[in-house]
Amino acid sequence: MDSVQPIIADRLRDVPRSFIREILKVTLDPEVISFAGGLPNRKFFPVEALREASDRVYRERGEAVLQYGNSEGLLDLREYIAERYAEKQGLTIDPATILITNGSQQGLDLISKTLLNEGDGLLIEEPGYLGAIQAFSIYRPRFLPVPVGDGGMDVEALEETLSSADPRLIYTVPNFQNPSGISYPKANRKAVAELVASSGAYLIEDNPYGELRFKGESAASFARYLPEQTILLGSFSKVVAPGFRLGWIAAPQALYEKLLIAKQASDLHTTHFTQAVILEYLRHNNLDDHLATICKAYGDQCRAMRQSIASHFPSTISCTDPDGGMFLWARLPEGMAALDLFEEAAKRKVVFVPGDPFYISRERVNSLRLNFSCVDEETIERGIAVLGEVMHRF
Amino acid sequence: MDSVQPIIADRLRDVPRSFIREILKVTLDPEVISFAGGLPNRKFFPVEALREASDRVYRERGEAVLQYGNSEGLLDLREYIAERYAEKQGLTIDPATILITNGSQQGLDLISKTLLNEGDGLLIEEPGYLGAIQAFSIYRPRFLPVPVGDGGMDVEALEETLSSADPRLIYTVPNFQNPSGISYPKANRKAVAELVASSGAYLIEDNPYGELRFKGESAASFARYLPEQTILLGSFSKVVAPGFRLGWIAAPQALYEKLLIAKQASDLHTTHFTQAVILEYLRHNNLDDHLATICKAYGDQCRAMRQSIASHFPSTISCTDPDGGMFLWARLPEGMAALDLFEEAAKRKVVFVPGDPFYISRERVNSLRLNFSCVDEETIERGIAVLGEVMHRF
Repeated sequence: MDSVQPIIADRLRDVPRSFIREILKVTLDPEVISFAGGLPNRKFFPVEALREASDRVYRERGEAVLQYGNSEGLLDLREYIAERYAEKQGLTIDPATILITNGSQQGLDLISKTLLNEGDGLLIEEPGYLGAIQAFSIYRPRFLPVPVGDGGMDVEALEETLSSADPRLIYTVPNFQNPSGISYPKANRKAVAELVASSGAYLIEDNPYGELRFKGESAASFARYLPEQTILLGSFSKVVAPGFRLGWIAAPQALYEKLLIAKQASDLHTTHFTQAVILEYLRHNNLDDHLATICKAYGDQCRAMRQSIASHFPSTISCTDPDGGMFLWARLPEGMAALDLFEEAAKRKVVFVPGDPFYISRERVNSLRLNFSCVDEETIERGIAVLGEVMHRF
Repeated sequence: MDSVQPIIADRLRDVPRSFIREILKVTLDPEVISFAGGLPNRKFFPVEALREASDRVYRERGEAVLQYGNSEGLLDLREYIAERYAEKQGLTIDPATILITNGSQQGLDLISKTLLNEGDGLLIEEPGYLGAIQAFSIYRPRFLPVPVGDGGMDVEALEETLSSADPRLIYTVPNFQNPSGISYPKANRKAVAELVASSGAYLIEDNPYGELRFKGESAASFARYLPEQTILLGSFSKVVAPGFRLGWIAAPQALYEKLLIAKQASDLHTTHFTQAVILEYLRHNNLDDHLATICKAYGDQCRAMRQSIASHFPSTISCTDPDGGMFLWARLPEGMAALDLFEEAAKRKVVFVPGDPFYISRERVNSLRLNFSCVDEETIERGIAVLGEVMHRF
């Protein structure tokens, strides 16, 4: 065989390249002010506490956690997760229905593997998380975008899509959504749940940011309304550290065994060592105190960003007012493309993510994502001022 | 929606349950002597050295390795792997073509995701590794089994299958194969490579046990004969510890970018923390000395098992003579089923893995797998004596 281009499976043909990874290349220049990231702020990683937790894990159960383990994940950790669901969200989740995954990205892969045949309908909020779009694309569903905005999911569009396209799966990030920062209001959740209840679809509630609330009141999980249809995805990435790649699926009982087979076939199991370390960390440290510190900083930075936007952006530009999470979403006047703005801003060494990769089919959109978790207040003011100048000239 | 059985994607329909997991349930009884395992011996896990390595990683690069990382894996670790390929196997591998995975099981998933359309031909050695059969099954290939034995892969059957079925992928474990313990002799590798060269297929050389040689001489990797067609799979599971779930793919350049997209979509990346720890361990410890200790023990245990077999098994039962690895393969006389033997032996509290799950289509086979890595010599003698008694009565 010559060294020609290989024949690649059809499923890889439509997977979008990671747009953000391309953009991040620009930001390697240390002089660039980046609002493009999607990372938690590393200054809050509890390095020393994790080091101590690791130390205890090696000493107390070293050989056991270095051996192959079960595919479900450490039972103790799944019990901790179930208890936290009960305490924080009033949800009754059986630890036996929790599957530990390599971050929630793997949760998306396993759910798709288990439920999606090629061409099956997949209803997704739009704009929507691009990592999810990438994970789903592998399984070649029919994407059915439904708009989300400050009021949550567009209920009329949802109803229309449910009845016309009969989707198998529905993907949502109802708390501090990526990319827009919005949350589904309570009334909207109820309305969405009522419509979904009468369909045959599973609803994925992806909730990586739910514990990063810095203002406002929480609304109930979809699992309260749709216990048999909601698949919960959770992650330690934004609350402790992403580098451990630890997330989980909490799935209706009927799905669990199939997800487990998919997990076994995919990589046998997620490392028990890091699971044991995070559990040890959670047992010896107060997660709520830790989260309070993170939320204070992210809240201050979000407020600073909104204030800078108010002073520097043209008044024709609107932006969302998140109650938590890591992102703001700004909308340029109709007809303008965020991609063009990106090019100009990058020349001035300020970057963000143009809205395009968060849409299934639209291009040259007029919206953009601004990250505030990794930038201090002084840098926010400088960066937003530059963006404002570029916009005024635009 | 009622709590009925969910509609599952077609791809999960044919995935075999993990047979070994079922069997392992029997072995939870501490009185059972188990030759059924597929685990490395935990007494050789370098717990203290890994603890020290972790400590240094937290202190020297804690925040960085706890953040999200690139999908390829740590460059330093990929360089180490490339250097070891050069040193131990005389292979020139560009670190830029190495992708760190969650064990080689994930390597199999990513390769399948990237290359297999439903119904594509997949040529697999038979008996073959059941974890691989499970990983491939998700992608619904046409399995094309070709026999392996003491002489390596059956070249006539290979030639016939290549020409009649035009497979996309070929799966092999040429060193100390799982389940049989055999290795492909040099002449056989050459003959296999010549046939494969004129096909359009990629050949997977899965090599988890290659460094566990306790006698005999090594033969060249397929990558020497087929550099553009060989996909190498490696793993730290059997040489350091499986609990870290660290393996890799070394792929021809033309495939690499596609595998990387599949990796991103599947779980973003393998944890950089454990990658950094294992690299730190490898830099501060002599892996060859460590391997010599393991090989000495496994070699002694293999020899003890063969001696016990010679004393206790009926002379009609043949078994392989591995030069390394963790498994022996025994063949009962034609017409006998290892499954029946298993049931009788389990009553006497000795277990092994009947050959069935290592075959694609055959059932009630007359072969069985015996693991020697996890059992000391005294226990081997006791367990094999019991098996011999059961066989004589059988």
